[in-house]
Amino acid sequence: ASGTVAIAPNGNPEIHAEEFEVLSECPLKEENGYPFTPKQSHPPDYVREYPHLRSRIDYMAAVFRLRHRTLTAIHNIWTKMTFSITPILTPNDCEGAGETFKVQPDNEALLKEMKRPENPLEESYFDKKVFLSVSGQLHLEAMSYGLGNTYTISPAFRAENCKSPLHLSEFHMFEAEMGFVDDLEQLTSFVEKLVKETTNVVLERNSEDLALCHKKFGDRSFDWIDKSWVSLSYEEAAKILQNHKDKFTTILKDDEGFSKEQEMFLVQHCNSPVFLIEWPEKIKPFYMKQSSNDSTKVAAMDLLMPDVGELVGGSLRENNYEILKSKIPAGLEWYLELRKFGGFPTGGFGLGIERYIQLLTGVKNIRDVIPFPRYPHGLSKSYT
Amino acid sequence: ASGTVAIAPNGNPEIHAEEFEVLSECPLKEENGYPFTPKQSHPPDYVREYPHLRSRIDYMAAVFRLRHRTLTAIHNIWTKMTFSITPILTPNDCEGAGETFKVQPDNEALLKEMKRPENPLEESYFDKKVFLSVSGQLHLEAMSYGLGNTYTISPAFRAENCKSPLHLSEFHMFEAEMGFVDDLEQLTSFVEKLVKETTNVVLERNSEDLALCHKKFGDRSFDWIDKSWVSLSYEEAAKILQNHKDKFTTILKDDEGFSKEQEMFLVQHCNSPVFLIEWPEKIKPFYMKQSSNDSTKVAAMDLLMPDVGELVGGSLRENNYEILKSKIPAGLEWYLELRKFGGFPTGGFGLGIERYIQLLTGVKNIRDVIPFPRYPHGLSKSYT
Repeated sequence: ASGTVAIAPNGNPEIHAEEFEVLSECPLKEENGYPFTPKQSHPPDYVREYPHLRSRIDYMAAVFRLRHRTLTAIHNIWTKMTFSITPILTPNDCEGAGETFKVQPDNEALLKEMKRPENPLEESYFDKKVFLSVSGQLHLEAMSYGLGNTYTISPAFRAENCKSPLHLSEFHMFEAEMGFVDDLEQLTSFVEKLVKETTNVVLERNSEDLALCHKKFGDRSFDWIDKSWVSLSYEEAAKILQNHKDKFTTILKDDEGFSKEQEMFLVQHCNSPVFLIEWPEKIKPFYMKQSSNDSTKVAAMDLLMPDVGELVGGSLRENNYEILKSKIPAGLEWYLELRKFGGFPTGGFGLGIERYIQLLTGVKNIRDVIPFPRYPHGLSKSYT
Repeated sequence: ASGTVAIAPNGNPEIHAEEFEVLSECPLKEENGYPFTPKQSHPPDYVREYPHLRSRIDYMAAVFRLRHRTLTAIHNIWTKMTFSITPILTPNDCEGAGETFKVQPDNEALLKEMKRPENPLEESYFDKKVFLSVSGQLHLEAMSYGLGNTYTISPAFRAENCKSPLHLSEFHMFEAEMGFVDDLEQLTSFVEKLVKETTNVVLERNSEDLALCHKKFGDRSFDWIDKSWVSLSYEEAAKILQNHKDKFTTILKDDEGFSKEQEMFLVQHCNSPVFLIEWPEKIKPFYMKQSSNDSTKVAAMDLLMPDVGELVGGSLRENNYEILKSKIPAGLEWYLELRKFGGFPTGGFGLGIERYIQLLTGVKNIRDVIPFPRYPHGLSKSYT
């Protein structure tokens, strides 16, 4: 194969082939079932029916390259933190919300062979009931006492019957745990820096991929990169919402968290990403640190972003042994021991990778920012 | 807290504290159950009983920092390849060897609520039986047609009842797929470069961690970095073994692969890492490319390393549609379609991350190169 490079009338480069070789043919749709037509722009929900072929679609390949850039940018920016592996298989059902997947060998003969008298058959393999991890946080905290600041980028799983375009059954989180953190402001400023710097790398390195996505999914503003982001206590946010309750349709309930609509209103009202801090203790998990001046509050923070709402959730971790002991769920005695044998104040957070790619690209449905999406009834047609 | 930095009599720096603050106490073992004694070197199998605490042990933290360096080195060296996510949940039981874990929601009410008449109860959630991935390869191949050279670093799972110090139920693989590859030598030279360059980065950046490991687990030679590595066809290797069958105890069988002992002999005999290429078709998976000059062989390669044996396995992929069609397992029609709709010759491989860390560090048991190891009966004592 040979040819010359020339400039086309529209100013773009093109190749004038003198000869070429066909490595592999792809006859059109009618003849052999190829689902896509050249030069036709297929909508995402049609393309999604063919997960094994959709990386050949220009805007899907652009989304997947932006995923790549995001993940490598995170690794390259946080070179002073140690990357840790957290397990997918775990005997901890975490917050016990019944949203876990359980796991066992697909081999009854093996289970029988391995069975010990004290265990039920389905627990033969590990000698415990085993679940897919819903978060690497607790294990990551254990690592942070040996490694200092540490992070993981790991799949996580939720067995919810949720049809929302913002949820997946298998998704990915960047999770970080940091030592010598005893003030929420250390966490929020770290997260603000993380999101801004990562976005700057992506904007600089993959501008063509972003332009292609914005052409397909609608324009985006990244003016939040140049702003200082707003922090609101949960109480302050509730007051703002109370004063503007005619602006949204969902009902504002005391101490029950905010609806997606209310979150979006706060972001719009503040004209900035918003850190919601100092949450009511009763709606947050057991490991969050009691606020020093109000035992009904915990030092938690959620980051709300334009377009996607909650992107990050985190907190200081309860390091008072007695307080933690009074709240620890059964089976997590090992986590309590982390505070028993020496340590330092820690804090951390999780950022949803898919949610972040939606923020970058404008992709409406989270199923289209991951190559092989897993969601309820999601394999009814596909074997991929 | 304040103090001055000084040089100790042995030449090492030390801090002379003038005052200090105790953030958190850790009384000794007898008093409150801390399992480790300062300045005593506990053996790995004792330390392994406390996975949530063992990152506090110096040599374990060194192993985990070496893991971090390995993974970030891979991301930084292969910047021209695109990082892809491959799914953990999959309806494909891959090679159908019955070594898979099956997955379902731990919530029978949810399964009943979601059940469709055509599906059994345990398949209600996804409408298919779902397994944990044993390899990301097939999905990664699908991505390579859209993204070009692509790789993933992902957990993989095997439900084997295997007590070997070289196997885990949950482990990690670096897997890569490359386009326009039609010669095994392209793959072997890529793998040789990958292993050498990654190791050079680790040796340069984490020499103290390596020294600590080698002091604990025994010295290692890395003289293979400066050698050109040997390639042997399966037939050549079988002949060498036949000529030296008095040097090992396992029996040499025709076309059934080699034992660990035989692999180690080949490495020793060649005084080099060994690529075993051109394998008998019948002992390799369906997706490997038939050799052009012998239809009973496939263009496969295994890399055997000193100390650990097989580190990498890979092949050219069968891109002849008719040959692949004759071998494709049921349920993998989507994989066959990758060859139907245009493409290019591809090849790829997988490298076991834990095996590689064993190669670097000399850690004998693979359970000690991963923070929270998962293996048969491995949770009998631990809830971590």
